[in-house]
Amino acid sequence: MVSQKGVGIVETQHATFTPPGGFILESGEKLDSVTLAYETYGRLNQEKTNAILITHALSGDAHVAGYHKGAKKPGWWDEMIGPGRAFDTEKYFIICSNVLGGCKGSTGPCSINPKTGKPYALEFPIISVGDMVDCQALLIDHFGIDKLLTVAGGSMGGMQVIAWLVNHPDRIRSAIPISTALKHSPQQIAFNEVGRQAIMADPHWKSGNYYGCPLPARGLSVARMVGHITYMSDTSMTNKFGRTRKQDLQPLKFTPGYEVEGYLHYHGENFVKRFDANSYLYITKAIDDFDPAGQRPLGELFKGVSAKIMVIAFKSDWLYPAYQAQEIVRACKMRGLETTYCEVDSTYGHDAFLLEIEEQTCLVKHFLKKVFNGYAVLDQYGE
Amino acid sequence: MVSQKGVGIVETQHATFTPPGGFILESGEKLDSVTLAYETYGRLNQEKTNAILITHALSGDAHVAGYHKGAKKPGWWDEMIGPGRAFDTEKYFIICSNVLGGCKGSTGPCSINPKTGKPYALEFPIISVGDMVDCQALLIDHFGIDKLLTVAGGSMGGMQVIAWLVNHPDRIRSAIPISTALKHSPQQIAFNEVGRQAIMADPHWKSGNYYGCPLPARGLSVARMVGHITYMSDTSMTNKFGRTRKQDLQPLKFTPGYEVEGYLHYHGENFVKRFDANSYLYITKAIDDFDPAGQRPLGELFKGVSAKIMVIAFKSDWLYPAYQAQEIVRACKMRGLETTYCEVDSTYGHDAFLLEIEEQTCLVKHFLKKVFNGYAVLDQYGE
Repeated sequence: MVSQKGVGIVETQHATFTPPGGFILESGEKLDSVTLAYETYGRLNQEKTNAILITHALSGDAHVAGYHKGAKKPGWWDEMIGPGRAFDTEKYFIICSNVLGGCKGSTGPCSINPKTGKPYALEFPIISVGDMVDCQALLIDHFGIDKLLTVAGGSMGGMQVIAWLVNHPDRIRSAIPISTALKHSPQQIAFNEVGRQAIMADPHWKSGNYYGCPLPARGLSVARMVGHITYMSDTSMTNKFGRTRKQDLQPLKFTPGYEVEGYLHYHGENFVKRFDANSYLYITKAIDDFDPAGQRPLGELFKGVSAKIMVIAFKSDWLYPAYQAQEIVRACKMRGLETTYCEVDSTYGHDAFLLEIEEQTCLVKHFLKKVFNGYAVLDQYGE
Repeated sequence: MVSQKGVGIVETQHATFTPPGGFILESGEKLDSVTLAYETYGRLNQEKTNAILITHALSGDAHVAGYHKGAKKPGWWDEMIGPGRAFDTEKYFIICSNVLGGCKGSTGPCSINPKTGKPYALEFPIISVGDMVDCQALLIDHFGIDKLLTVAGGSMGGMQVIAWLVNHPDRIRSAIPISTALKHSPQQIAFNEVGRQAIMADPHWKSGNYYGCPLPARGLSVARMVGHITYMSDTSMTNKFGRTRKQDLQPLKFTPGYEVEGYLHYHGENFVKRFDANSYLYITKAIDDFDPAGQRPLGELFKGVSAKIMVIAFKSDWLYPAYQAQEIVRACKMRGLETTYCEVDSTYGHDAFLLEIEEQTCLVKHFLKKVFNGYAVLDQYGE
């Protein structure tokens, strides 16, 4: 049972960091300053030991819970965050920030390049998942937090969780990577590449210089449509749409006739209103290039880590199949980390991490309670 | 072991049919005349009982075996056809034709509309898989063949096999549907719709009126890239590409850096040279709309059929999963048809029907021998 009460009305905040020497990226390039959009819920305790960072997926943002004033829809993981919920705001202080490279208030390709006074567009440097996480570490410093109680996120959010373990092993007491992988398979790269090609094939893209002009809307829409197929499962699509045809229009030649087509169009077109095409390029590239183990043996990946780990995967997720989650578990076990692995039965495909609230609530509550109380993590599911 | 000797140099032929009253399509529209491009191999026996029709997939053509003069690559299923091969040209007369709606010599949207003297483009009527098959029946008439020994094909070719059973049950002694389905799932429709949208988003598409102008090359290329991902499996992509980066170029921002990206680009760009974008729209729509059972009970689908059936599926084919092949088997069994079902172990995904030659050769040889000799089909694999 998900608690009825959420965090209520919330507002996105912004913090700008100007480290001496600039913010150095993994590529060696630097940004003189970086801004992160973020939201927080609950209260940081006096010892500053109850802070949890939630990391978002490709198209997510800082607004993970509650309602913006006047909004009809809550944040993207609202049911997981609030009083009595999985991430209980009566116990924990929850932080979520829009990633570096994003388009929801954090520094990204649509931000103004201080050197030109115009949006960066493709002048924006290539960013990595590690850079996203290093930027979040500045935000954690800003709050005076030494160690996070946990970092939790799904999909690209899960990659950030892994990057936290790798880049900041001494600043994280536990980690919950969900529906994610240590690195992308060629199939995952291929789907992203199709999305990028669809965007760059749009003549309105103009090598990224479309700000203030018509947007590469059709290209971005096609990219999102491809994405949506991979987020669902064969079963969930069949359950949701079957072969039902849309009633509201006379099917003309090659106009969407099936409900599934209408659904994809709707979500493709909507995405254009809320997402920047260049951000899509930068962020998908960061995901594809994520490979913290690289040529090293898997057992060396989590050197120096002492965090407790809970890895969650979903059976019908074919975009991030369970074998990839099991590889994370293997990397943890090879360092003797306390690790729980849960493979949740769901037909929702990759979207399951956003939809299977009840079981995740149960898993996260037990896990956090034990971490927060300093108890050993008992594996609820056997391994 | 595949026989070394193929059918040698071959040439595509053309036959034009002008039925009295025109060729009436499933939609009710008509074409005054239809042309089919076709190839044949082997010899039709005097009794005309040894004719086999091979049906092709979405991007296939009539050139299924042998070499066109000067060509380096043989037909698309060459290893399956020739003396001593699965479809043994020393015993059988093999016919393959380009489908109606295609762009390889048969009447399609790029053909000249006799009423305007210009290519049809979107003036071309909507065609169905049933129409493709009815057109092939005219070709069979043309050879004076009463009954085909078998019709065999994979993917959309398999749908044509099913359409033969449904539309012409008395003209077919056996059937081999491979890697196919009785109808598309919403996931399959969704992938096709993304391809169509990519084409129609290309400003060069111009509502289909691009003949004699620059082609909608980038859109068609993206469509083909999506297709290619679905034709392979996660495993086969990992085996073929891993995360290897291309050596031959300095990766610039968002240029293909991984081998898998280069592969998709290469095949996308190549496809544009050999395929018509409007044909892609018409044919994918025909596939998506294919649903011969419709609202009828499955057991009624093959009413009047007495053919022997061999259904083949491949374990790693996630585009046409084995459960869809098993549905064909169920429809056959519900009519008491002699039916063999083989689920071949392969990591090649949907492409397996083009690549797993050895096992298919074995299966097809045994099946055809028994059908041709009039013996009962013994199920080699148990069911």
